[in-house]
Amino acid sequence: MAVNAAGRNIPNNIPGYGDVLPFRGHTKRLPKGNRFGKKNRATFNTRTDKTLPNLKAAIKASGLQSGMTISFHHHLRNGDYVVNMVLDACYELGIKELVVFPTALFGVHKHLTKHIQKGVIKQIQGSVNGPIGQLASEGGMELPVVLRSHGGRPRAVMSGDVHIDVAFIAAPTADRYGNLSGAHGESACGALGYAHTDADYAECVVAVTDNLVNYPALDIQIPQTQVDYVVEVEKIGDPAGIVSGTTRVTRDPMRLLIARYAARLIEASPYFKEGISFQTGAGGISLAAAAYVRDAMRERGIKGSFGLGGITSFFVDMLEEGLFEQLLDVQSFDLAAVESISRNARHVEISADWYANPWNAGCTVNMLDAVVLGATEVDRKFNVNVNTEADGALLHGIGGHQDTASGAKLTIITTPLLRGRIPSVVDSVYTVTTPGEVVDAVVTEFGIAINPNRKDLIEAAKSDPEIPLVTIDDLVEKAQKLTGPMAPVEVEDRIIGVIEYRDGSVIDVVRQLKKK
Amino acid sequence: MAVNAAGRNIPNNIPGYGDVLPFRGHTKRLPKGNRFGKKNRATFNTRTDKTLPNLKAAIKASGLQSGMTISFHHHLRNGDYVVNMVLDACYELGIKELVVFPTALFGVHKHLTKHIQKGVIKQIQGSVNGPIGQLASEGGMELPVVLRSHGGRPRAVMSGDVHIDVAFIAAPTADRYGNLSGAHGESACGALGYAHTDADYAECVVAVTDNLVNYPALDIQIPQTQVDYVVEVEKIGDPAGIVSGTTRVTRDPMRLLIARYAARLIEASPYFKEGISFQTGAGGISLAAAAYVRDAMRERGIKGSFGLGGITSFFVDMLEEGLFEQLLDVQSFDLAAVESISRNARHVEISADWYANPWNAGCTVNMLDAVVLGATEVDRKFNVNVNTEADGALLHGIGGHQDTASGAKLTIITTPLLRGRIPSVVDSVYTVTTPGEVVDAVVTEFGIAINPNRKDLIEAAKSDPEIPLVTIDDLVEKAQKLTGPMAPVEVEDRIIGVIEYRDGSVIDVVRQLKKK
Repeated sequence: MAVNAAGRNIPNNIPGYGDVLPFRGHTKRLPKGNRFGKKNRATFNTRTDKTLPNLKAAIKASGLQSGMTISFHHHLRNGDYVVNMVLDACYELGIKELVVFPTALFGVHKHLTKHIQKGVIKQIQGSVNGPIGQLASEGGMELPVVLRSHGGRPRAVMSGDVHIDVAFIAAPTADRYGNLSGAHGESACGALGYAHTDADYAECVVAVTDNLVNYPALDIQIPQTQVDYVVEVEKIGDPAGIVSGTTRVTRDPMRLLIARYAARLIEASPYFKEGISFQTGAGGISLAAAAYVRDAMRERGIKGSFGLGGITSFFVDMLEEGLFEQLLDVQSFDLAAVESISRNARHVEISADWYANPWNAGCTVNMLDAVVLGATEVDRKFNVNVNTEADGALLHGIGGHQDTASGAKLTIITTPLLRGRIPSVVDSVYTVTTPGEVVDAVVTEFGIAINPNRKDLIEAAKSDPEIPLVTIDDLVEKAQKLTGPMAPVEVEDRIIGVIEYRDGSVIDVVRQLKKK
Repeated sequence: MAVNAAGRNIPNNIPGYGDVLPFRGHTKRLPKGNRFGKKNRATFNTRTDKTLPNLKAAIKASGLQSGMTISFHHHLRNGDYVVNMVLDACYELGIKELVVFPTALFGVHKHLTKHIQKGVIKQIQGSVNGPIGQLASEGGMELPVVLRSHGGRPRAVMSGDVHIDVAFIAAPTADRYGNLSGAHGESACGALGYAHTDADYAECVVAVTDNLVNYPALDIQIPQTQVDYVVEVEKIGDPAGIVSGTTRVTRDPMRLLIARYAARLIEASPYFKEGISFQTGAGGISLAAAAYVRDAMRERGIKGSFGLGGITSFFVDMLEEGLFEQLLDVQSFDLAAVESISRNARHVEISADWYANPWNAGCTVNMLDAVVLGATEVDRKFNVNVNTEADGALLHGIGGHQDTASGAKLTIITTPLLRGRIPSVVDSVYTVTTPGEVVDAVVTEFGIAINPNRKDLIEAAKSDPEIPLVTIDDLVEKAQKLTGPMAPVEVEDRIIGVIEYRDGSVIDVVRQLKKK
């Protein structure tokens, strides 16, 4: 055991994970070694059609064996059919003990439970939003879930920490030689940002599509040079679950107040000027904060440089209004974003590597001025938890939280002080996702606490008398007064989740819930 | 010494090149090992401006040392200033014995002669069009020039055969964080296709630009994730030498006849149908052949799938007329092509890897129906020489000749039977660039010789009574009658050039010219 820089006492070795590199601070780990290189292969003009009749044929052709690692991307979100289809086919082929390496799993992947129980799946390395996270938390998986951020995942692949044997890519459009696009087709999802590293580094790449078009496909995002087989299926997903019709600003007065405070802090900061860049999530508070910032940009005649992240109609409107020069889009959240990326050269698809990987020549989060992020909990040291719920269950992924917080000049966490009777600002978070050293401010309906390391920001905030400055201790005490003491989470010793920091060190672990 | 599959007797080891892998046939070499991976590196938000004040500062920052390998791309062609500037700076910094690894050098690079003579440059691995080729042919370089095709070069880099220490990328547009575009700026050159592999695999990447723009640059072709330093200079090139104003169809009646024959052969082939794809060069005969094919497409109402290659205004017009679905562009030859790629989503930039590398999951030449190529010489076995002139001087690169010939279903070589008093169809070519096994037909003003292996094509050609079928022996004899016996090239034993086949084997060597 050793205490890491986030104050967590973590074993030196975790069964099913291996040796632990303790988190030492957000810029402390410098890389060694070389990038991974997959096996060389040759292709000639003797096979100009990469289609195979069905998934089983492709799995056989890929050479997939029990014990190997298979990857998926999550742009089809809760509408995805491909992950379940592939695991069903593996089960039917008698393939077992797979390591599943998705960028994220959703409610629809509850279907995997049976494959976990039957031993088709040995481990999941990737975000487990919802039911599979609950299953893992209750001890239902043999090996721990390993979580990585959107930037940490390509880092792990490119450095060779994770070796992908076969990548399955859900492709809204494909041609017979393996050029893929997310911009077109009935299952269009826009950007395919999370799939790029898998396509480039997996030993074998299988594209699964429901829109097979003539060569060459239009608006190619993943090229034929990276794709070995193409399988046509009836449907790769349910459009209703892939993109939401629209993304909405919150109407809740308390959440609007938090958004207003967050926007005021951005406006008071030195970053609110010509060329500002920012990212907000697709949640209600985030979108509302973006709306307030947009209004201030209009008012003061400020034009931004780029909007980043998962992209919504809100940012598309800002682009079209001329408030951004470009949108850099790793994942398109709604129909307006999908439609925009297919026609506007200023709406650019970027890979997760480009978005957030700390181990390349420079990812985009480093150029961010401001980011507005959410939290399940924040603590006195500004550490943030987005992974576990109040009961200790591992129900959420890291997303780009660590990455944008580390890269942006101004990282703002917005959260109601309480959710129901549960405090969000606490003595010490149950799980550290993002270390306090990269968090600049916590914004609640009871005021804004700025990280004492950011004296410059505190001074800037004082210039706006409407910004209600408080200390983080004020917030913790206020929350404690309102809720009274909370019963601690009761857990077993057994580790069921490993939270990697974006540099591949371990920032925290999650333990199995005590049976009730 | 060993005789390879092209019938050439080549030493097992060549000083300055190393062990020779003999060419064994165009699909015979299967790869082993893994792709190369460059050193991992980390970047944080502590350096968000990659610009340095000048080239020397960037060279110092790159860690470039004597004996290392530096690379360049040739999209600025005979207008390029960057290669000369970089070598001048290396000279002034006292850096010596460099291996220069350009995609191609042109007349403007005659300037390098002094750096070769002073020992700044130890070897050139890349096409040497013109004066540097002449210098090498006369024995002016210590180590042999190594030539690779447009597909063989990325293969060599990705497999680790060639290790690039520092890549210098001439960038018509760049932002301060290293996003590069060829589509905009006074030195706009359109596609940057040959630069992609260098950007991805070099240990360090230095962009040189004369158009530094706000972040993020528009129409990014090479992303910030691959670029370490950016240097702004006054001019990266002379626009007049970068792109030609227009590319013109030949008006010479004999050349028009050859083009007509080539087009007739395409039209008679089974590939002339809906969805046809083709590539022609930018030379007069090639463009004329394309014009005849275009006319036949209009006449018969045939719509093509894609036009490939170096792209000219001619193909742009076909795209806009709806005769192609898309253009796949590794290098834009004229102003119309540069303008088109910057605005038309159906005019797509592809990398050299995507275009022609035999060692990925499938390059585009494999999808080509027909290609029309030139030759200095063709012989009785259909072997083609595009590298050496009649006097034995190594004056031309391979380009995509080997790649397209290997990939296309129909490979047509067009050449006048004689050039002046020199025959183009001979007993045995002086240098084998492309092996006869991948050449389907030789088209001259005296008739078309089809490779006897292509009985299907001979049958198809017979269906058109206007196609003047002859044998290759007919053409050789006709040429010999017209010219009389030719004096053989007189050479020393010393090897001054190594011609690699696209798979990394050696298909031929070029020897030093005898002093006259």
